[in-house]
Amino acid sequence: MSDHPELTKFTGWAATAAGAPLERFSYDPGPLGEEEVEVAVEYCGVCHSDQSLIDNDWGVSRYPFIPGHEVVGKIVRVGTQVRGLEVGQRVGIGWYKGSCMHCTSCIGGDHHLCGTVKPTIIGSNGGFADRLRSHWAWALAIPDNLDPAMAGPLFCAGSTVFNPLVEFNIKPTDRVGVVGIGGLGHLALRFLNAWGCEVTAFTSSLNKADEAKRLGAHNVIASTDSGALKAIAGTLDFLLVTANANLDWTAMLGTLRGKGRLHFVGIVPSAIPVSVFDLIPQQKILSGSPVGSPSNTATMLEFCARHQILPQVEMFGMSQVNEAVDHLRSGKARYRVVLDASK
Amino acid sequence: MSDHPELTKFTGWAATAAGAPLERFSYDPGPLGEEEVEVAVEYCGVCHSDQSLIDNDWGVSRYPFIPGHEVVGKIVRVGTQVRGLEVGQRVGIGWYKGSCMHCTSCIGGDHHLCGTVKPTIIGSNGGFADRLRSHWAWALAIPDNLDPAMAGPLFCAGSTVFNPLVEFNIKPTDRVGVVGIGGLGHLALRFLNAWGCEVTAFTSSLNKADEAKRLGAHNVIASTDSGALKAIAGTLDFLLVTANANLDWTAMLGTLRGKGRLHFVGIVPSAIPVSVFDLIPQQKILSGSPVGSPSNTATMLEFCARHQILPQVEMFGMSQVNEAVDHLRSGKARYRVVLDASK
Repeated sequence: MSDHPELTKFTGWAATAAGAPLERFSYDPGPLGEEEVEVAVEYCGVCHSDQSLIDNDWGVSRYPFIPGHEVVGKIVRVGTQVRGLEVGQRVGIGWYKGSCMHCTSCIGGDHHLCGTVKPTIIGSNGGFADRLRSHWAWALAIPDNLDPAMAGPLFCAGSTVFNPLVEFNIKPTDRVGVVGIGGLGHLALRFLNAWGCEVTAFTSSLNKADEAKRLGAHNVIASTDSGALKAIAGTLDFLLVTANANLDWTAMLGTLRGKGRLHFVGIVPSAIPVSVFDLIPQQKILSGSPVGSPSNTATMLEFCARHQILPQVEMFGMSQVNEAVDHLRSGKARYRVVLDASK
Repeated sequence: MSDHPELTKFTGWAATAAGAPLERFSYDPGPLGEEEVEVAVEYCGVCHSDQSLIDNDWGVSRYPFIPGHEVVGKIVRVGTQVRGLEVGQRVGIGWYKGSCMHCTSCIGGDHHLCGTVKPTIIGSNGGFADRLRSHWAWALAIPDNLDPAMAGPLFCAGSTVFNPLVEFNIKPTDRVGVVGIGGLGHLALRFLNAWGCEVTAFTSSLNKADEAKRLGAHNVIASTDSGALKAIAGTLDFLLVTANANLDWTAMLGTLRGKGRLHFVGIVPSAIPVSVFDLIPQQKILSGSPVGSPSNTATMLEFCARHQILPQVEMFGMSQVNEAVDHLRSGKARYRVVLDASK
């Protein structure tokens, strides 16, 4: 059935204390669950959330744990109750790897909103490792014509920015903006360009302007340039915030036309002060969303395959994981770092 | 054509300084616009916004001006280009009395979001008077089986709480909440009960609990009772804030289930501090809206006629306008004050 032997221990690179370098670490995965697939990791993206959890930025980290939640690999074992997947298939696993499958959210297709949804690396070990297990519903088959070396980031960064386009019915005729041109933002530009929209990139450094245009933006403005924000006041239908930064949110709301939406997927550190006077007169909306449901993610993969949308990545060997994390920390990643498990 | 003579002056009750009693005041309305109707005022509701402008709470008041923007009356004159209305018809006029009719908002049916929409009493004179003029599109015919003495508040308070039910597709299967049981909130309870929803009223004083149930609430909780808010955490689809008060918005967001909406129509004085951690994981939404469009308001009137939904009002003669405003200021109005122009 599989070239991959059954392992009694999974081995990877674990965070052992806030900010410390990752160390080699093994754990006993226990018996394979009836609804689980086991994946031999081929590639794993490195996400800002990995770094935040390694550094305990959110105060929820429990050490040791193995980071990594943008996994691509081949199924090597399947539980007795697994549906729709088989050994040898290449799949991806993202921010979540399980949910209850029977609550109103799961049964309604919104598994990502399940009250007991299982994050891949919070209280659990992730994909900077040789193997990873997931509930079958959360392991998505990767289309044959998508390069598996680059597909990993689609499962967290990609799904996070694709999800609201479907959930909030963004239309090809909309004028949209993307705030922050990083791991998430650069994929948002590619998606929204293929979506048919007029796309404006908001960036902290205008030296990314040419790259933003190459990635799909029609217009680029500096997110801290109050004059530029005023110049486009009342014009956007949808403004997607992928930046993890505090900005002038009143001015950002001001760029929206009537019924426009300011949508957050980036972990903005401070509370956003919203005056009802910025919402009520023009019927504006503020919202946030996590990674998408399995169904939404499958839709994204189909869209990516059709338009050949992939992240722009920098490859590191899995054994260079600490260099890779440091590269991300430096803010110099263009635009996503991926680990190759064979190296 | 009309029993009402052409007047060279319109006469009413004007605010002359912040907080001062209203005084008798006349103004020259000029020639009737080609697209305007002129209405002989029969009744006019007294809204918190009238009080806010009389007292210059929003810093935009210019004195003297005649308040009043929940007007019911009969059309006595029509301009040459008026469509769909004729002399003798009974109509209502609310917060807005005109818009450009040709911008993308107007031509798209969202006249209430027109960039040059004309508020009835900001920089203009309103309905605490013998006559009021309006663009024909903003004067809505009142169904025959709605009591005109009570219909005025539907055109501001009513439209303000009805508008989001249509705009955001509130479903009869939804579990909804209404924060604040006043002029707006009591109508929201009536609408949402007739809408088929499970309705929870949030009130600052539980001594309104029996009234809230009589108005349509199935459940009543104190909006400052953190234990009660926790007990219903994750249960509501839609929470409509009609209160003009600062509350624990994190706890209020917590009452919503996944994809739930916290919606503001009340002028909350302070900025609402929103953490992305309260929006992102469960894909929650925060929004605001003004009074509805003419089309939305016409839909509301049809719904009111079918379900006999009217505000609960206290009547004052127009000559008692200062007592009426003071009664509203005292917070004792149950739930809307209406002036009778014949008295």
